[in-house]
Amino acid sequence: MNKTIENGFSFIIFGGTGDLTNRKIIPAFFQLYKRKILPNNFKIIIIGRREYTQKDYYEFLYNALSKFASINNKDDFLNFAKYIIYYKMDYLNNALYPKLKQFILDIEAQYYIAKNRIYYLASSQEHFEIIIQNLKNNHFIEDATISRLMIEKPFGKNLENAKALNELLVDTFKEENIYRVDHYLGKEMLQNILVIRFSNIIFESLWNNQFIDHIQITSSETIGIENRGKLYDSTGAIRDMLQNHMLQLLSLVAMEKPKDLTPDSIKDEKTKVLQNIKHYSIEEICENVVLGQYGSKGNIKAYREEDNVNPNSMTETFVAMRLEIDNPRWRGVNFYFRTGKRMAKKCTEIVVQFKEVQNNLYKDFNILPNSLIIKIQPMEGIIMQFNTKKPRTINTIVPVQMDFCQNCEIGFNSPEAYERLLFDVLRGDSTLFTRWDEVEISWKLIDKIIDSCKNKSLTFPNYLPGENGPKEADMLLARFNHKWHNEEDNYENI
Amino acid sequence: MNKTIENGFSFIIFGGTGDLTNRKIIPAFFQLYKRKILPNNFKIIIIGRREYTQKDYYEFLYNALSKFASINNKDDFLNFAKYIIYYKMDYLNNALYPKLKQFILDIEAQYYIAKNRIYYLASSQEHFEIIIQNLKNNHFIEDATISRLMIEKPFGKNLENAKALNELLVDTFKEENIYRVDHYLGKEMLQNILVIRFSNIIFESLWNNQFIDHIQITSSETIGIENRGKLYDSTGAIRDMLQNHMLQLLSLVAMEKPKDLTPDSIKDEKTKVLQNIKHYSIEEICENVVLGQYGSKGNIKAYREEDNVNPNSMTETFVAMRLEIDNPRWRGVNFYFRTGKRMAKKCTEIVVQFKEVQNNLYKDFNILPNSLIIKIQPMEGIIMQFNTKKPRTINTIVPVQMDFCQNCEIGFNSPEAYERLLFDVLRGDSTLFTRWDEVEISWKLIDKIIDSCKNKSLTFPNYLPGENGPKEADMLLARFNHKWHNEEDNYENI
Repeated sequence: MNKTIENGFSFIIFGGTGDLTNRKIIPAFFQLYKRKILPNNFKIIIIGRREYTQKDYYEFLYNALSKFASINNKDDFLNFAKYIIYYKMDYLNNALYPKLKQFILDIEAQYYIAKNRIYYLASSQEHFEIIIQNLKNNHFIEDATISRLMIEKPFGKNLENAKALNELLVDTFKEENIYRVDHYLGKEMLQNILVIRFSNIIFESLWNNQFIDHIQITSSETIGIENRGKLYDSTGAIRDMLQNHMLQLLSLVAMEKPKDLTPDSIKDEKTKVLQNIKHYSIEEICENVVLGQYGSKGNIKAYREEDNVNPNSMTETFVAMRLEIDNPRWRGVNFYFRTGKRMAKKCTEIVVQFKEVQNNLYKDFNILPNSLIIKIQPMEGIIMQFNTKKPRTINTIVPVQMDFCQNCEIGFNSPEAYERLLFDVLRGDSTLFTRWDEVEISWKLIDKIIDSCKNKSLTFPNYLPGENGPKEADMLLARFNHKWHNEEDNYENI
Repeated sequence: MNKTIENGFSFIIFGGTGDLTNRKIIPAFFQLYKRKILPNNFKIIIIGRREYTQKDYYEFLYNALSKFASINNKDDFLNFAKYIIYYKMDYLNNALYPKLKQFILDIEAQYYIAKNRIYYLASSQEHFEIIIQNLKNNHFIEDATISRLMIEKPFGKNLENAKALNELLVDTFKEENIYRVDHYLGKEMLQNILVIRFSNIIFESLWNNQFIDHIQITSSETIGIENRGKLYDSTGAIRDMLQNHMLQLLSLVAMEKPKDLTPDSIKDEKTKVLQNIKHYSIEEICENVVLGQYGSKGNIKAYREEDNVNPNSMTETFVAMRLEIDNPRWRGVNFYFRTGKRMAKKCTEIVVQFKEVQNNLYKDFNILPNSLIIKIQPMEGIIMQFNTKKPRTINTIVPVQMDFCQNCEIGFNSPEAYERLLFDVLRGDSTLFTRWDEVEISWKLIDKIIDSCKNKSLTFPNYLPGENGPKEADMLLARFNHKWHNEEDNYENI
């Protein structure tokens, strides 16, 4: 059996009434359905603990899709809904798994669906183990089936815990069938980074320490932790964002050219970037990491005032960091990271800051060095900042921007990351998922950072909602004569 | 005395009722006047042969300015007109020059204007010699005056003739006071070429034969020769456009970085480019030059049918050419030129075509190599074409454009070239004017081309109005697997 979807598939979601399923997974399936790229014989089995009849569930689903997808007419919804089955079950109860297995077999028989199953873990992290164990013990993963697993980030809470989880997974599924989701990798502009870097001589040729001064990777949010208090308070920004999304961005931006475009060649090079991160002592780590936690402002609650958060919490809602990559391409180039909640703008972007021109003819003109900005969300596109003569002047030089904006046209929406990721799992392409060695090495790095920083004596809160983190984050860059790129920075409009 | 304009100046125009004066010179002065950068004591003395009273001339001037400048209210015009004096004189009559001299002296005395005179030759070429000779013989250029000369292109008709003219000029004026006008150099984007090249590491680093495959310089017009039949028929596209504008564009694009921004440092490097043009034999020139003349189409007359054109004329209205520059930066890079009348679009642009990526990961994707397009007129700006992933596709790569458009904003008009050029002469900056050695070397090249090509047996007309020259121009590039960039070429709009 091959991993195509022509002969149908079952998609079994544990945690099927949760936020992730309603906001992302089902809307993405609905999109794929409307694009007519799904076969006729598939079923999505929603496993939840709520006492819903099929009818109740459809109502619930209709409300969710109305909110998180675009339903143009009710018929569309009703036709799509036929593919979805609600299955009530407490998935913490081991005794119920044989019945679930039989249910899946029956569905496959009834609808002539190939034994092509994808298990999707959308439950809370702490239940992953029990679910996997039960799938294993009850022989859900038979030889005669293709059994794939999609598992959400963060993959574990630290290296040790991630290792244990991974051992369980590889003991149950083949590595090639494990899809570790980092949904950032499904975003259009992340997929685009390699194309931009390696299909354009103008970018490929400049992509090294001869021309690049430093690189900034920012992922800022204006929202707080919403209703995730309990989970967030035991996680924090480093584990929530840095360990996965931010290091993935780093890998794509900094990797060497892979020998070909196969998933393994790409992941080999991505992993090497993380392996080549320069080793810092505990003291050096402390000097290069800045943690923050937001206070209150107006009617915006401080982090410590949020529901289900410890009123003395020392969990960071902001982290800034500097690191270096110790290889010939990047030696001497600083990489800066910054991510946090309640910041000034919602913005994920990579800023490639070029060096100044050597023997600059225009050194008296106070010009800015060039930069290339890769906008990831909410805007998508690339911006190149360069210098030009200001018209009508004798010789005034001003920085201007040239941009290629991918989602600026009215009516254009990039597909949601999950739409792409689900489709890739269905057709068995693992390029946009993380391999165990990537996860392992990133946890090694993150554990070290957390161990080093948590001993730092910190005074929280240390930034206000609407600020870009604590002032120490600016000072981190100021030490190297650098400045964070903030979207508010204006360029001359000539 | 220094060359500032604070103490006033006289601007004496020979050929003052002609097209150039009305369309360009006076409107440019009117602009400078409205920008309030002219002093209070200056006079423009219009020397013409027409029987105008001052009042007649103002009417004539008002009509001209209404057409070629923007007069917002009549007061503006009347205030400006006070600075302009019509002086009736047949400048071919030697006997009248002493009287003209006295007139200028009287004006200077009456209006307290410093002896700061600029003579502007807007007459037809054949009268330049007689005018200069008279200025010399009648001692217009005294020691106690600053006497500058502005002279329009083309500077001579061939090397011999240009040399003779130049000898007369340098015998009369100091070289530093001779301003050889090539109005292209006053255009914003030409002034911008050096800024773009040398103030941006991203462009400076890529500007050589390691990254650039070839460069195209096009200046196409949709109009015919209008009412210039007699002049054009004895000139042709090579002398009219290639000898001056096109070679100036080449110099700016290809020159080495000057040691500083002084006019002489820049001109030294510009001249070297022309000196380094690879020597071709007569046979090689013929292989690398394509001449064309337009025929008729619908109610558009053929060139040979235009007024005052020889019905068997062999004058070219189109020329395409390939050349190489034999220095380390450019060895192996083809430079293509193309200019003509009655072509498909009005467009002056430089296309820098980059090489393909080495060891291209995306070689099966049929991608285009990068290019940078410098738009000079009528649009001004730069366009960078690069490859990106097409959204919603698995891995389709499409070429897209990122642009910086200088005059796309509504209400924005780049200043006319002459506005800048006049102001530069007034303040004594010769950067945007051509030095004799540039002119000399370009005529050497052009003479050789004309001598070689005129022996070619040609069948004219060989292209139709609306076509981009004869098909041989396409074949010239096809020999090297290249293609002309035409504005119609579409890029994916994603």
